[in-house]
Amino acid sequence: MSLLVEKTASGREYKVKDMTQADFGRLEIELAEVEMPGLMACRTEYGAAQPFKGARITGSLHMTIQTAVLIETLTALGAEVRWCSCNIFSTQDHAAAVIARDSAAVFAWKGETLQEYWWCTERSLDWGPGGGPDLIVDDGGDATMLIHEGVKAEAEYAKSGALPDPSTTDNPEFQIVLTIIRDGLKSNPTKYTKMKDRMVGVSEETTTGVKRLYQMQISGSLLFPAINVNDSVTKSKFDNLYGCRHSLPDGLMRATDVMIAGKVALVAGYGDVGKGCAMSLKQAGARVIVTEIDPICALQALMEGLQVLTLEDALPEADIFVTTTGNKDIIMVDHMRKMKNNAIVCNIGHFDNEIDMLGLETYPGVKRTTIKPQTDRWVFPDTKSGIIILAEGRLMNLGCATGHPSFVMSCSFTNQVIAQLELWKEKGTGKYVNQVYILPKHLDEKVAALHLGKLGARLTKLSKDQSDYISIPIEGPYKPAHYRY
Amino acid sequence: MSLLVEKTASGREYKVKDMTQADFGRLEIELAEVEMPGLMACRTEYGAAQPFKGARITGSLHMTIQTAVLIETLTALGAEVRWCSCNIFSTQDHAAAVIARDSAAVFAWKGETLQEYWWCTERSLDWGPGGGPDLIVDDGGDATMLIHEGVKAEAEYAKSGALPDPSTTDNPEFQIVLTIIRDGLKSNPTKYTKMKDRMVGVSEETTTGVKRLYQMQISGSLLFPAINVNDSVTKSKFDNLYGCRHSLPDGLMRATDVMIAGKVALVAGYGDVGKGCAMSLKQAGARVIVTEIDPICALQALMEGLQVLTLEDALPEADIFVTTTGNKDIIMVDHMRKMKNNAIVCNIGHFDNEIDMLGLETYPGVKRTTIKPQTDRWVFPDTKSGIIILAEGRLMNLGCATGHPSFVMSCSFTNQVIAQLELWKEKGTGKYVNQVYILPKHLDEKVAALHLGKLGARLTKLSKDQSDYISIPIEGPYKPAHYRY
Amino acid sequence: MSLLVEKTASGREYKVKDMTQADFGRLEIELAEVEMPGLMACRTEYGAAQPFKGARITGSLHMTIQTAVLIETLTALGAEVRWCSCNIFSTQDHAAAVIARDSAAVFAWKGETLQEYWWCTERSLDWGPGGGPDLIVDDGGDATMLIHEGVKAEAEYAKSGALPDPSTTDNPEFQIVLTIIRDGLKSNPTKYTKMKDRMVGVSEETTTGVKRLYQMQISGSLLFPAINVNDSVTKSKFDNLYGCRHSLPDGLMRATDVMIAGKVALVAGYGDVGKGCAMSLKQAGARVIVTEIDPICALQALMEGLQVLTLEDALPEADIFVTTTGNKDIIMVDHMRKMKNNAIVCNIGHFDNEIDMLGLETYPGVKRTTIKPQTDRWVFPDTKSGIIILAEGRLMNLGCATGHPSFVMSCSFTNQVIAQLELWKEKGTGKYVNQVYILPKHLDEKVAALHLGKLGARLTKLSKDQSDYISIPIEGPYKPAHYRY
Amino acid sequence: MSLLVEKTASGREYKVKDMTQADFGRLEIELAEVEMPGLMACRTEYGAAQPFKGARITGSLHMTIQTAVLIETLTALGAEVRWCSCNIFSTQDHAAAVIARDSAAVFAWKGETLQEYWWCTERSLDWGPGGGPDLIVDDGGDATMLIHEGVKAEAEYAKSGALPDPSTTDNPEFQIVLTIIRDGLKSNPTKYTKMKDRMVGVSEETTTGVKRLYQMQISGSLLFPAINVNDSVTKSKFDNLYGCRHSLPDGLMRATDVMIAGKVALVAGYGDVGKGCAMSLKQAGARVIVTEIDPICALQALMEGLQVLTLEDALPEADIFVTTTGNKDIIMVDHMRKMKNNAIVCNIGHFDNEIDMLGLETYPGVKRTTIKPQTDRWVFPDTKSGIIILAEGRLMNLGCATGHPSFVMSCSFTNQVIAQLELWKEKGTGKYVNQVYILPKHLDEKVAALHLGKLGARLTKLSKDQSDYISIPIEGPYKPAHYRY
Repeated sequence: MSLLVEKTASGREYKVKDMTQADFGRLEIELAEVEMPGLMACRTEYGAAQPFKGARITGSLHMTIQTAVLIETLTALGAEVRWCSCNIFSTQDHAAAVIARDSAAVFAWKGETLQEYWWCTERSLDWGPGGGPDLIVDDGGDATMLIHEGVKAEAEYAKSGALPDPSTTDNPEFQIVLTIIRDGLKSNPTKYTKMKDRMVGVSEETTTGVKRLYQMQISGSLLFPAINVNDSVTKSKFDNLYGCRHSLPDGLMRATDVMIAGKVALVAGYGDVGKGCAMSLKQAGARVIVTEIDPICALQALMEGLQVLTLEDALPEADIFVTTTGNKDIIMVDHMRKMKNNAIVCNIGHFDNEIDMLGLETYPGVKRTTIKPQTDRWVFPDTKSGIIILAEGRLMNLGCATGHPSFVMSCSFTNQVIAQLELWKEKGTGKYVNQVYILPKHLDEKVAALHLGKLGARLTKLSKDQSDYISIPIEGPYKPAHYRY
Repeated sequence: MSLLVEKTASGREYKVKDMTQADFGRLEIELAEVEMPGLMACRTEYGAAQPFKGARITGSLHMTIQTAVLIETLTALGAEVRWCSCNIFSTQDHAAAVIARDSAAVFAWKGETLQEYWWCTERSLDWGPGGGPDLIVDDGGDATMLIHEGVKAEAEYAKSGALPDPSTTDNPEFQIVLTIIRDGLKSNPTKYTKMKDRMVGVSEETTTGVKRLYQMQISGSLLFPAINVNDSVTKSKFDNLYGCRHSLPDGLMRATDVMIAGKVALVAGYGDVGKGCAMSLKQAGARVIVTEIDPICALQALMEGLQVLTLEDALPEADIFVTTTGNKDIIMVDHMRKMKNNAIVCNIGHFDNEIDMLGLETYPGVKRTTIKPQTDRWVFPDTKSGIIILAEGRLMNLGCATGHPSFVMSCSFTNQVIAQLELWKEKGTGKYVNQVYILPKHLDEKVAALHLGKLGARLTKLSKDQSDYISIPIEGPYKPAHYRY
Repeated sequence: MSLLVEKTASGREYKVKDMTQADFGRLEIELAEVEMPGLMACRTEYGAAQPFKGARITGSLHMTIQTAVLIETLTALGAEVRWCSCNIFSTQDHAAAVIARDSAAVFAWKGETLQEYWWCTERSLDWGPGGGPDLIVDDGGDATMLIHEGVKAEAEYAKSGALPDPSTTDNPEFQIVLTIIRDGLKSNPTKYTKMKDRMVGVSEETTTGVKRLYQMQISGSLLFPAINVNDSVTKSKFDNLYGCRHSLPDGLMRATDVMIAGKVALVAGYGDVGKGCAMSLKQAGARVIVTEIDPICALQALMEGLQVLTLEDALPEADIFVTTTGNKDIIMVDHMRKMKNNAIVCNIGHFDNEIDMLGLETYPGVKRTTIKPQTDRWVFPDTKSGIIILAEGRLMNLGCATGHPSFVMSCSFTNQVIAQLELWKEKGTGKYVNQVYILPKHLDEKVAALHLGKLGARLTKLSKDQSDYISIPIEGPYKPAHYRY
Repeated sequence: MSLLVEKTASGREYKVKDMTQADFGRLEIELAEVEMPGLMACRTEYGAAQPFKGARITGSLHMTIQTAVLIETLTALGAEVRWCSCNIFSTQDHAAAVIARDSAAVFAWKGETLQEYWWCTERSLDWGPGGGPDLIVDDGGDATMLIHEGVKAEAEYAKSGALPDPSTTDNPEFQIVLTIIRDGLKSNPTKYTKMKDRMVGVSEETTTGVKRLYQMQISGSLLFPAINVNDSVTKSKFDNLYGCRHSLPDGLMRATDVMIAGKVALVAGYGDVGKGCAMSLKQAGARVIVTEIDPICALQALMEGLQVLTLEDALPEADIFVTTTGNKDIIMVDHMRKMKNNAIVCNIGHFDNEIDMLGLETYPGVKRTTIKPQTDRWVFPDTKSGIIILAEGRLMNLGCATGHPSFVMSCSFTNQVIAQLELWKEKGTGKYVNQVYILPKHLDEKVAALHLGKLGARLTKLSKDQSDYISIPIEGPYKPAHYRY
């Protein structure tokens, strides 16, 4: 697509695939609202007070229907919002269209190139002359990373006049990042520094982004406060686990229509995501093999009747391979060559480097046939045997299906709203310094409570006597911080 | 669509949606072939002998990718084939295109009107002057029913000169059938009678069609031999059960993206289809309520931890309603009015009359909003509450998703091939009279055996001594006829 | 025990382990009655009419608490009853005691020798001078077999004067049978013939006994009518399946306290019993491997995510071995030698010859240590490795636990009562000849219906219109005979 | 039993039920050792060094076979041990016998009175003139509590001469504790103070005990360092969860033989124990209703398809009630009166006050019938309806069955050994002050690793490159402290 920003009649910027899908997007948003009681409760509770009045929020998070409901919750609470997706395949174009038309500046479409992806990220951070956003909703940490890299480059430039050199890295994506920063530096040498100065904080959605934040905290390089939303119980133990239990088979079915029953499936990694994946594959009738580095998670898999082996052990018999590790180089091209014909290989964990896509693409003589978008068959010249790669190695549930369903995203996104409210409320109070924080348990419990009514649940209430007996307040929080659920 | 038959370069007739999808269809067929070991084994075993040489086969069965592999198995064995779908929403247009281009006369597209549907059925039965097909592959019995109704009308016409009168029935679909027959009668008053005379037999795919056949057998009106493929163990206990376990959540997810976990789902009917549906909903984290008329099936549901209630009991709490009964009038418009807002209502069992679509469509003031094709929200004027109807009340797994996966269809369709071979081989021998037959157990076991290797299974073999001890031949059949699996 | 018949104050004969346990038995019977609604409903429905008045019923069926409720149902309906167990380990001594004290002549205790076992069987068939019983409730067919063998021997003796020669068989148990008959012949050369003449019919409980009956039917040697209770749906699809799902882990836990989670379990045979066993092991967290000879059952196992291999394949990794085949020589001593140390080996299917107990007992140098009754560790001299054999290779759920729970036995035993009523009602009418019959479907459905209320289920009722549409009576039967559930 | 200490030939004190069961205990210990790889690995790793040389360890923890293997691991590492059970019903008498005979001073039998229970506890703490133990292995905190109460009373006595007055408390058990302390005070007014002075530390096994410790830490009254073993991942996420998944149905089956399938079961509390219980009941075919105070745990239950209601809601339909809350007054006598006839009521969570046993026992006119030990039927005079109470309201898995299986206890107890080693090694170093500590993650992971081989698992190893990429050491620890598993 040509990278020109468009504007709505009201002057709001956007760049999306197809504005005619906005009505369809609105219909799906209306369905989703019924499934997202936490977000709707936030609108009811906080809408009148307009707590985000004056706040500029940039989001870098899969531009789906569920995210649309999040965005419109933020705007209902008074925020101005700019948004991009955090994955080149995860945008739902009708969601992007309706938000662009009705609610916020959006830069996102399904099937971006990496170049386009970073252009969108930059657009969503660019609030014009007055600097960047006040708050960021991040997923995977790309928006945060861009600011941090930008600030670093600007400091070096101010000191030595040196520009970042994209040729210093092998990573093609990071080359793009450095190029963007370099090109920006010339026209505005303090762009990211000003952004950083304005920033009140970021709330981060996912494991990978959180890991980056803690690394920056440890190295002392974190430039603004961060709330780790991922590790709210109502996020990681719901979205990561139950979301993937839902969306993994959904992605497999939409992409390949393959029967899961009777197959042998390998799940690499048995964290929350891996647990959800393994559960759904087992329940669909597959025999599941797990790979793990952590003996505790391995023992959990065994207690569920799953086999724990190495990837090499399972190569001759597995039909479906799913990576969920958050690490790189899990399935290499040499593994793929040894797989059964039409073995399905996909990633639901992290970046596309869980699968050695580079190795596959550059394998001599390999032939790629696109069955349909996000479903490719790659045939090796020596064996004539093919494997099926989903979503080009990127998150298959977002690339091949529609991501996690509304209800579980309502849990995650209610945490986001609460985190953003907290950061904004405490702006300037010094409560949050440049560190990573987890939401207090009573807020986590509140998020859960907002989702019970929809499912017809009725909670039990402690009596005063019981509360005294176990030294737990009647209204909670109910568990010590170290409790694992 | 304009109902004009088109022709390929080679002169074969067809009517499909979009011939440009043929290449995509071929790619998906190639994937499916790897998943359909039974059909591919038939090609290997019988291909050289061309046992269907000279046979004309008409099929009325969902025109999907899996059916494409069936059709190309029949043609690989020497048959000439004409095909239509047995459901207005079940055709996969890329499958229809590739078969039309490469292998057989196809009259089918996704989203036919009822008028178009019966035109397609008639086309697929029309082999030109020499009469109709030798053999029919039927699903639901519409092709068989059209011949039987035609013969009846022709007999009446020959006797009394009376034409069928569509106004004698309330059923709009049957009005179309009578109209077609009436219109044909004028030009060719022995068309269906000649068809009947040529017919060697039919093999019927599904419960509903089989029920019709047994009723005709009992009433003595069955006009040609029929093989009941549905009640092969490797059909009804696999396709109906495990196929639906796979395709129900697939259809729900594609149509609505709704989270199944935490929801209350009502499954009407606990036969093989209902069992598969209930199993998948339970495993996805729903709480499942079953309705049943049969106390035995009800007790089975209870033993699996499911609640057995009436539909009325469950109306206030269920979020998802699935009909699987093979009966009519299961969910009436009065039930729908009492459902929760955005309750999902769908049918995976039989015709669209399991759900009272007529009552819904004619409810005063009801408003229909199409979210996307096959997903409609209907809002009642009094309650302002809406329900979501999938696939207009027709089979939701075929309307909203792609039907059953290849592997399980390979079991069903290998039974079809074997049944067709048997009918054709015994043509004129008198082995089969105008009755309904089930395939002998050793063929059923053979179908299963053809599907084990793909899943890495290794069978145990009886010793001579063990075989004597239990009086079962080493090579099978292994079970008495009454065995229930 | 010394084999002397004892008598109650009222003169009824018995031989049990410990009469002081009668009160405990009564308490457990009272609990069981609440869980056996089908039997209690029979008392309510038929008790007043005393339909069994004048009938002598001999039972050869595990003398458990559940059987006690069956026996007292038979007597409540007017019958006189004599009973023995059909397995040397399956008697619950408190159940035997209370029945002996209160209700029927019982000859049974836990831990009979084979000699004692057949003595008990003979006692239960011996109704004194007037011949044998009118009716038999059989389980496994031993009582029926004894009469048949007796009649055969008496015929030969009448013809040639030859006595049966126990030395003509290798089978130690059959030697005992022949000895009993031989010894009886001398004093009463027409005992079994008179028994046969009086016999109205037998109802047989289980797969193995039914198989024997069909073999006699085929060979024309069946001496009286038989009702195959095993193949009532409410028996084989409940007792065999759900009963074993309950009692297999129960037996494993009581016998060994071993953790099932994380273990590899091999289930030999995937019929109803095997399905129940595999299900419970899988759900308890084991990884389950199935062996099968029948490709259809094998494919079912695969669809449930189970691995299908041969016993030899699984020897190095399995921790628990369960035989459910109904065949002999499934696990041989050579297999046992190759198992992991402390592998558990047990049988829940059929006779103790599923496991090669003879081969084990006679293995040179093998050493047996009884951990506790029915739990033995056998150590091989060469490997020093031991295996754990449960219940000496006999039914482990009855030997090591208390068999199937009351509720599911109520289903089975209500079938027994109905079968016995039917045979007795039709005595002399010629309705039943010397063949094997299955109960008609409406009675099968009745059994199920009697068990729904206890579980809080509410059935749906067909409307007249629906009933007409599917040609099924409102009151049932609801399914064709070939339906598999 | 008469409370006289006995002595072995070697002079070691003990009080057990039946010394003749020692051989049986030894056989079961030998089986358990094969299932407890973590403990056996400790013997191999540390045995030669005798790290516990000179250490006196008192244990107050269910005196089962698994505990016997723990005790013999402690003695194999050089410790002297005295032991009592922490529950009046949990002792396995053969386990107590063999340990008393071979390894340690034991004071424990199944079915102690409360009076006897506290006598045993006191005996196990009494190491003679030199004071008490160096280390305590505690479960529920009774041994720790006795010392704390004793010290408190001695301080008061030293100050004011006042003796503790048992009549100041309503709690009959606490009256006994005060009596014991009071009676001891007279003869030795510094007994507990000296004990406290000698104490190096305690390692606590379970949730309830840990809660007491944290309360003492908060109030500043904790008298010695404590290691919270319960919250090792390899304890609470294994023993509590998978242990109960195993032992709940085991206890139900042994106590009542009731069929779980088809029943409605209420699980009060959805922590680790509740999760394990709900899982096993659901998998056995029950319909499970959960009660919760914590909205997060409630939402987890919903995601698994369980219904979340209040106890009052479920009273009319539940057949089985299980308390797992760790709180008191969960099921009151007024609830019990409204239950269905023969509803089963049991506790697997905490003390017998989860169930209102006092209310039941004192209900006017209530009648108790003991079916067998630990299984009582209580009939209310007004309704004539009865309920079944297991283990008199105490832990039913230990009272009615044999507790958790060896394998999962090996995980827990390996944590205990490591905790004791750590406390003893750091004696006098000041590393541990009077606070509660959790074992470091690398030790937790070590415990898991020791249990993988037995189950045939093969771990994956990080490459150097991967380790750098995610900043996790190749050898672990693999997760941040807040990770929830």
